Amino acid sequence: MTTLPAIAWIRADIRASQGYRPEPLPEGAIRLDAMENPFDLPPVVHQRLGEEIAKIPLNRYPDGKARELKKVLASILGMKEEQMFLGNGSDEILMDIFLSTQGPILLAEPTFSMYRILAMVAEKKVIGVPLSGDLALDMPRFIDVARRERPSLVVLSNPHNPTGRGVDVGDIRTLCENFSGGVLIDEAYYPFSRESGLPLQKDFKNLMILRTLSKLGLAGLRLGILSADTSIIQELDKVRLPYNLDAVTQRAALVICQEFFPLLEEQAEWIIRLRESFTEALSHISGVVPLPSRANFLLIRLEKADPSVVHDLLLSEKIIVRDVSGHHPLLSGCLRVTIGRKEENDLLLLALERILKGQS
Amino acid sequence: MTTLPAIAWIRADIRASQGYRPEPLPEGAIRLDAMENPFDLPPVVHQRLGEEIAKIPLNRYPDGKARELKKVLASILGMKEEQMFLGNGSDEILMDIFLSTQGPILLAEPTFSMYRILAMVAEKKVIGVPLSGDLALDMPRFIDVARRERPSLVVLSNPHNPTGRGVDVGDIRTLCENFSGGVLIDEAYYPFSRESGLPLQKDFKNLMILRTLSKLGLAGLRLGILSADTSIIQELDKVRLPYNLDAVTQRAALVICQEFFPLLEEQAEWIIRLRESFTEALSHISGVVPLPSRANFLLIRLEKADPSVVHDLLLSEKIIVRDVSGHHPLLSGCLRVTIGRKEENDLLLLALERILKGQS
Repeated sequence: MTTLPAIAWIRADIRASQGYRPEPLPEGAIRLDAMENPFDLPPVVHQRLGEEIAKIPLNRYPDGKARELKKVLASILGMKEEQMFLGNGSDEILMDIFLSTQGPILLAEPTFSMYRILAMVAEKKVIGVPLSGDLALDMPRFIDVARRERPSLVVLSNPHNPTGRGVDVGDIRTLCENFSGGVLIDEAYYPFSRESGLPLQKDFKNLMILRTLSKLGLAGLRLGILSADTSIIQELDKVRLPYNLDAVTQRAALVICQEFFPLLEEQAEWIIRLRESFTEALSHISGVVPLPSRANFLLIRLEKADPSVVHDLLLSEKIIVRDVSGHHPLLSGCLRVTIGRKEENDLLLLALERILKGQS
Repeated sequence: MTTLPAIAWIRADIRASQGYRPEPLPEGAIRLDAMENPFDLPPVVHQRLGEEIAKIPLNRYPDGKARELKKVLASILGMKEEQMFLGNGSDEILMDIFLSTQGPILLAEPTFSMYRILAMVAEKKVIGVPLSGDLALDMPRFIDVARRERPSLVVLSNPHNPTGRGVDVGDIRTLCENFSGGVLIDEAYYPFSRESGLPLQKDFKNLMILRTLSKLGLAGLRLGILSADTSIIQELDKVRLPYNLDAVTQRAALVICQEFFPLLEEQAEWIIRLRESFTEALSHISGVVPLPSRANFLLIRLEKADPSVVHDLLLSEKIIVRDVSGHHPLLSGCLRVTIGRKEENDLLLLALERILKGQS
């Protein structure tokens, strides 16, 4: 009697939605779309990883509390173990927080597109406050909307995605002084800005700081880290899947963070330097305006060319960047480009210059 | 102005809830509570794993679609790649399905406690149909409630947890013939029963079959597998976190399933034989009634002794079993015991006999 479609039991809003769509990935492409660290770790790290992974008794469930890993991460990141919450990427942590929140979520838009997708899945209303015309966060206005609309949770990314702009830590303090719901600062790009709201947690118990190892060079591991008051962690632990982090990921992250963390930090330094020279070089291309960035990516505005055409032409040369021009009116004309290795950035510069000449 | 508690923004129902609580784990304990395969894989497997893991470029995001892994799993499990959905354990898949469902969820209770916890998190109403007095599933009654209450989704575990009883595949067919919402059969314990609803999927597009590698011997990897109609997979993919399976887990599962799957199946055979001898031995202990099981655990009823007292006495001898007596009125007097290695089962038998003598 299956006369109904097989998906009749699924929520209508999910059926009507698009979901998250990563860029297509042609063989041998230069990936400047995913905010990855372009540098792989040296062979010695891989070898150590292999040795350690080989020791894990896979027939047993992982430590559901990831105690050893938390201890190492706490000391590296300057957090307290009992204030930590780990997830499969920051995505899972965001999902757990969005599921936990009582009511609406306030965002400064345009922002990371997953926020709205996760809010939809968690059936939470989103209130979007637009950035100002120069893509800066207008904190007085943001606070004003927060006071008026009374969301349960506010979420900001710092540095902001997709603009790359830093949010002033003083502004975050002001926000916390004026809003007593949940305040979540997504510091995914912290390794490239080195400015954090973490020290403010001693004054504001409702302030949560979200980090990830993905941008730092471990995207393959999917490890997100939240620092929050223990009272918040206790509640989130009820929402977290009991064995959310598998044993292999826990061990791999442990070994790398314990033995090789300075390597990742050194790579972040390289990326910061590459960002500065890349920004400079882009600014010399006619018709391209790069926004100064504190992250490992650049938002660039094309003054005359159509970003989706440029995106597709780059794709045909196997250079993948992100066309964000359709994501929000404030992003019209914009592409987002991850900082790659020098030779990758150079190839993009050459291709972009050539394409833009052909377009004008 | 943080005059509100730090958790004021968190849902009241979450704050009032308990969450999932795994057993405490003393050092060097015999774990007969978690339905793990007690046999680790041989050194050659661990070595191959280490070699393969050492090759992964961790700076890149994993394949969000886990294409290679799906291909291997499809051929091993007799599924179709395009009908597969993978998650961090079946927990994550259950969560995605519970989030996706339009309305209430129908369960046969007592059942796996995570179902109710996940439904609470996903804010979905649960309708519980009790098992019959002998802990069997009363399918006519279950269907009757399904027709009357019109849930969006029905969930059954087969073999059923925590009874270990098998659900007749003919009964599942009858259910599908009489209910056109989502039908989810959780076959976590399939390796120990070898009876599946999978062949019914060709007749019923709304039938989803859930498997896991955890009970088969890879609990540390956290890999859950769903087989469902492509139209369902497409919707669930919108709810799934885009990179939910990390690169290390994908590769580890790939290597083991591709090269060593027969080893896991052989271990399952050992466990089935151990289950039969363990059941027999338990039935000879005065005051103990083991329920015949198709899974890798046994539900045992203590005729006179208090299960929580026996549980604690076993724990003091570092033997961990699960006290399920408080989970549901039908389980009063019951403990749930995972099938361990022969020597572990023997230690439990001896301890149980001694404790019950002391109790009477």
